[in-house]
Amino acid sequence: MSNRLPVELSKAYRLLNHGPTVLVTSAHGDAANVMAAAWSMPLDFSPPKVAVVIDRTTRTRELVEASGEFALNVPSRQIALETLAAGSASGRDIDKFRELGLVTFASENIGAPLVEGCLGWLECRVIPEPHIQGTYDLFLGEVVAAWADPDAFRDGHWRFEEGTPRSIHYIAGGNFFETGGAFEVKK
Amino acid sequence: MSNRLPVELSKAYRLLNHGPTVLVTSAHGDAANVMAAAWSMPLDFSPPKVAVVIDRTTRTRELVEASGEFALNVPSRQIALETLAAGSASGRDIDKFRELGLVTFASENIGAPLVEGCLGWLECRVIPEPHIQGTYDLFLGEVVAAWADPDAFRDGHWRFEEGTPRSIHYIAGGNFFETGGAFEVKK
Repeated sequence: MSNRLPVELSKAYRLLNHGPTVLVTSAHGDAANVMAAAWSMPLDFSPPKVAVVIDRTTRTRELVEASGEFALNVPSRQIALETLAAGSASGRDIDKFRELGLVTFASENIGAPLVEGCLGWLECRVIPEPHIQGTYDLFLGEVVAAWADPDAFRDGHWRFEEGTPRSIHYIAGGNFFETGGAFEVKK
Repeated sequence: MSNRLPVELSKAYRLLNHGPTVLVTSAHGDAANVMAAAWSMPLDFSPPKVAVVIDRTTRTRELVEASGEFALNVPSRQIALETLAAGSASGRDIDKFRELGLVTFASENIGAPLVEGCLGWLECRVIPEPHIQGTYDLFLGEVVAAWADPDAFRDGHWRFEEGTPRSIHYIAGGNFFETGGAFEVKK
């Protein structure tokens, strides 16, 4: 089971601030799904909000619109293969959790499951903005709870030590950058 | 002068796909400004669109609203100090280009200047969405031209070789991750 601790809501944006690729999980009724998204970002600090692009052709879109909820999961490099596959296959065709061997655990506040092997998790409720959802496939969400693996993120900060598990950044064609070393800039 | 080649518009999203911190440049009349933004992302492939958060208190916001244009510049680690400072100081108080020693060159299609020492540049026109601009400080733009330093990004792809200049990813408190090594996932 993924080790995890709650993240103070005012620090939740930091899970996304450096631009990692995420897994978007969703559920409605008995159905649940997971997709990969390179296009997400923080939108506000407090209350924390996020923005994410969810294409109109996806199964995730149906589940998010039906439930008004989604979770953003920040995968580690260890599940990069599953992340890539979750971005290629459709939840209309297969049960991606089962086919990809992705184990989940329950959110505390929403119906969407959370994915084991991730470094951070944000439970979100959709802020309804039908015009931008319909025109741009752009969804805004309020973060109602956040969690992190304390080996990677603790006390509101990503850990910088060598060997700390790192998130991933999708490029194209099956290629990712891993999050590299940290450095401090002093004025 | 920064070496640069045009980026095919359908590949412009790749300059942002991995989530780098950007410099937002803007101009109106005789005024110009630069700010740092960790919160930007691609919004569509073709025509390419982007989303970026521009706080209502900033000078950049005034210039973007007045001109309907902005540019996103992807800085390299070499100008991380200037990027941090551009995110701290206000263009109301100082000429950030001059004070920070940031050299610029002209865009081809918009009034905003582009910053030397960056790896990629996206010239954008605001897609007017007054409700989300006013409510969330969220701006959408269509990318009308894009450029990249061919040492870092060429033929529509980031270069993966060791030693290639890398973009940066802001965390908090003057700390960045650098973009790390690339890896390919094969299904």
